Amino acid sequence: MSHNLLKGKRGIIFGALNEKSIAWKVAEKAVEEGAIITLTNTPVAVRMGDVNILGEKLGAEIIPADATNVEDLEMVFTKSMEILGGKIDFVLHSIGMSPNVRKKRTYDDLDYDMLNKTLDISAISFHKMIQAAKKLNAISEYGSILALSYVAAQRTFYGYNDMADAKSLLESIARSFGYIYGRESHVRINTISQSPTMTTAGEGVKGMDKLFDFANRMSPLGNASADECADYCIVMFSDLTKKVTMQNLYHDGGFSSMGMSLRAMAAYEKGLEEYMDENGKIIYG
Amino acid sequence: MSHNLLKGKRGIIFGALNEKSIAWKVAEKAVEEGAIITLTNTPVAVRMGDVNILGEKLGAEIIPADATNVEDLEMVFTKSMEILGGKIDFVLHSIGMSPNVRKKRTYDDLDYDMLNKTLDISAISFHKMIQAAKKLNAISEYGSILALSYVAAQRTFYGYNDMADAKSLLESIARSFGYIYGRESHVRINTISQSPTMTTAGEGVKGMDKLFDFANRMSPLGNASADECADYCIVMFSDLTKKVTMQNLYHDGGFSSMGMSLRAMAAYEKGLEEYMDENGKIIYG
Amino acid sequence: MSHNLLKGKRGIIFGALNEKSIAWKVAEKAVEEGAIITLTNTPVAVRMGDVNILGEKLGAEIIPADATNVEDLEMVFTKSMEILGGKIDFVLHSIGMSPNVRKKRTYDDLDYDMLNKTLDISAISFHKMIQAAKKLNAISEYGSILALSYVAAQRTFYGYNDMADAKSLLESIARSFGYIYGRESHVRINTISQSPTMTTAGEGVKGMDKLFDFANRMSPLGNASADECADYCIVMFSDLTKKVTMQNLYHDGGFSSMGMSLRAMAAYEKGLEEYMDENGKIIYG
Amino acid sequence: MSHNLLKGKRGIIFGALNEKSIAWKVAEKAVEEGAIITLTNTPVAVRMGDVNILGEKLGAEIIPADATNVEDLEMVFTKSMEILGGKIDFVLHSIGMSPNVRKKRTYDDLDYDMLNKTLDISAISFHKMIQAAKKLNAISEYGSILALSYVAAQRTFYGYNDMADAKSLLESIARSFGYIYGRESHVRINTISQSPTMTTAGEGVKGMDKLFDFANRMSPLGNASADECADYCIVMFSDLTKKVTMQNLYHDGGFSSMGMSLRAMAAYEKGLEEYMDENGKIIYG
Repeated sequence: MSHNLLKGKRGIIFGALNEKSIAWKVAEKAVEEGAIITLTNTPVAVRMGDVNILGEKLGAEIIPADATNVEDLEMVFTKSMEILGGKIDFVLHSIGMSPNVRKKRTYDDLDYDMLNKTLDISAISFHKMIQAAKKLNAISEYGSILALSYVAAQRTFYGYNDMADAKSLLESIARSFGYIYGRESHVRINTISQSPTMTTAGEGVKGMDKLFDFANRMSPLGNASADECADYCIVMFSDLTKKVTMQNLYHDGGFSSMGMSLRAMAAYEKGLEEYMDENGKIIYG
Repeated sequence: MSHNLLKGKRGIIFGALNEKSIAWKVAEKAVEEGAIITLTNTPVAVRMGDVNILGEKLGAEIIPADATNVEDLEMVFTKSMEILGGKIDFVLHSIGMSPNVRKKRTYDDLDYDMLNKTLDISAISFHKMIQAAKKLNAISEYGSILALSYVAAQRTFYGYNDMADAKSLLESIARSFGYIYGRESHVRINTISQSPTMTTAGEGVKGMDKLFDFANRMSPLGNASADECADYCIVMFSDLTKKVTMQNLYHDGGFSSMGMSLRAMAAYEKGLEEYMDENGKIIYG
Repeated sequence: MSHNLLKGKRGIIFGALNEKSIAWKVAEKAVEEGAIITLTNTPVAVRMGDVNILGEKLGAEIIPADATNVEDLEMVFTKSMEILGGKIDFVLHSIGMSPNVRKKRTYDDLDYDMLNKTLDISAISFHKMIQAAKKLNAISEYGSILALSYVAAQRTFYGYNDMADAKSLLESIARSFGYIYGRESHVRINTISQSPTMTTAGEGVKGMDKLFDFANRMSPLGNASADECADYCIVMFSDLTKKVTMQNLYHDGGFSSMGMSLRAMAAYEKGLEEYMDENGKIIYG
Repeated sequence: MSHNLLKGKRGIIFGALNEKSIAWKVAEKAVEEGAIITLTNTPVAVRMGDVNILGEKLGAEIIPADATNVEDLEMVFTKSMEILGGKIDFVLHSIGMSPNVRKKRTYDDLDYDMLNKTLDISAISFHKMIQAAKKLNAISEYGSILALSYVAAQRTFYGYNDMADAKSLLESIARSFGYIYGRESHVRINTISQSPTMTTAGEGVKGMDKLFDFANRMSPLGNASADECADYCIVMFSDLTKKVTMQNLYHDGGFSSMGMSLRAMAAYEKGLEEYMDENGKIIYG
């Protein structure tokens, strides 16, 4: 059911790959809510993924571009303004990748060229995108720019590796640029810190199903789905959140405010049983 | 323009006094967005304020009640369910008052009976409200409960006094109960931390106009208005934010993420000029 | 080994019960580091506990007092100044108790008289203590006041109940009063957020051993002990931390900055095994 | 007065330039507290600065090294272990520089090669340092690693530019590596978030004196000095803080917990006077 929340708005969605992608859902809902949009992803992702299907379905043009390349980004904004017929009202940055994670380099054995790539792709691309847009004066007054983040920016999760640092940097960029772009053109910049999500990217993470289960049991409302995340993005693009900026917004069923839930502890406890003596006291190893 | 975001939903608004009140605006917008509501405030406030005007305008029944009184709260929920024809989907808690502030007791000279009242009215009333609702099973699955807070819960503002402690307690209650009510009925509980606002309550605070000005210049988007706050409340009541819970959501034009803005410093600097020597160096007193 | 960190300093320790108490260890170490102190606890605790043994051992006078009673608190400061021969340099508040927890009232069935007691004993007593001290001008310039807290002030732990709200209030009081007392007399006020600790109070908490184990496996350094906490308190009382104020200091082996550790997940995973199908995929219930 | 807090410990101090440097004070106090140390800085800084004077005074060898170069860092740890006769117990990272700030590139006109340098020098160097140390097994059990940070990592200060993002990244690295190194060797890793300080680096920042004044009036205890910061570093290197890790510790006279102080508002208010009408009401521009 549409609420016409984005009626007449123009948007750019970075990072839709296939129908599991959060960016994919955001694109669908944005159009449903009355927006016209362009889609962009790397040339490889455009070839390999299903974004063309999405483009056709939504009547949205696809602009292949490397989000770490300033000229490509300028081209994306210039073309999008042409195609959509005016300044851009909202932008979604749903981009992240760590070569160190892919190559199974542990955090105490990082390759620094790879770390630079992690930061460039997952965080600095957000700065480049906003700087390119601002130089082109491509964002409307009271426009809304969003990036997707994860609570690993605040707390360490084993295996999340240098992506945690990238997310911290990403959230800092949202604040730093939120100040500049806010005072000049009332453009708001925020990040949404989303539950672990079973996207293609998420599924690739080792031990993801266990972490997903843990987060789900910890969160009183359970993990937030990609669909629900898309709803939240729509809300943040709409005119109803015009004074929210420089924030990291947890969309996680309550996970970020939990220390320990009964449900998670019940599973944990079972795992402890073999460490217990006959009286049920834990034997500390 | 309505988006029908609350179509078919039933709500209770605590704390509307007059047309400057945030709760007043929330009531108006909730109805505009398709909800049916009841209004409640203390018997004194109902007599002294303009809430009857609002009730008439919105076709909303007014239920006088003391929010620190458990029986009154049970009555509010029972009556509201009768009047509105079913379980409640959303609740706004916009209640706060400090007798210590009113009586100009400074923070190092608090009267402890008054402190108990501050906490009871401004924070514990939120617990009582939710506990009463839960015992009556009065909130729908995926219902949304909101309270209004202020950044003084995290950072000290001179003169805000024991209201800062009350807001910290309020936000803690939102988390604690958010866990319990979330896991059982998917009810979400959040607080919105709003800019200083020129309501009747706000105007009463000593030095409020200066603080308002400071916050306005610090915030890249300027202070958020009562109207804009109401928009954000609507969003948090809608189905588009179903997985947001146990959060304190800053609605403040960016203030909470600012350390110092150029605009605020420009005003500050002028104030410093008389402390400067002929070379423009600050003379530290 | 003593470092003479508190040489010539006078202190008051609230809350030592027996040799497991953190306050007990702080008292011992404070004296070891050159301080002279008084000890205080409720008349009941003084009769039931071993604080007399501690007093004898340390040559420290014991002053029975109810920390929720302003006159008693004034008496503690007045007497302590007499006994110790001057203004007080440091104070430890290690006091907390919830009648709701004791009586097994769940968080959605709180007794509000009991809640008031929880808040009064565990949080407001801290305000009363500082206000009494300030009115008597009983704290030295650059004195240091500490209270013990727990991460439940920020994140919800099942079963911690209204103590979580009390700890939030306690930490807010530290900030609010830290501002006032700091600007006037350079007195610093902080809280230490300590790992779950196997004190008499801690052992009484239901499921404490499992939570203790979870925290221990989550924390890269393991849980912090009462002894180690006492060391940290000494540091915060010393002149080496003169500019630290209004802070909540985590002393928890890293727990507060952890999202999930490999060790904790290993135990958790075992607990999950019975929810898995033959391919090791989790069956979501 | 020495407390022998670091008796028998071996340390490495990165970043001492001249006697205003925090690192300089830390070096002095570390030796005073019984440690033996090496000093390191870039070859240019060693030539231009006064670090040789410090080295002579403290009997500490100086090892010129580029902290962004992994081989140099390995050399620093290897040599330091040789010189000091064993594994390293503590390390201070006091390094930060932004070519964008130096070249007056504003945050919406960053040069990305320069941004990479900012991040590499000010944040990634911390990872490289720790990774090098860990690969060489150069840090003792329960060793302590510290970096200096600033509250701009959490809140935006105009003019602080990409250094804010670097500090966020730095603090994230402290957490991420704190987990890994903690669980394996009990090494703790923290950052100290220091008041604005009138070091050579600090003095170079445009408008620093005004920001310094603002922070000073906001902080109930006033700004923390370089000397006081050194005291806090000593405490964090000592055995008294063995279970503190993955933390960002504010050492700022209370600034980070302040929203608005009366003293700061008094100066601000004067600056506002010319915006007021004859009745003292602010005229909002």
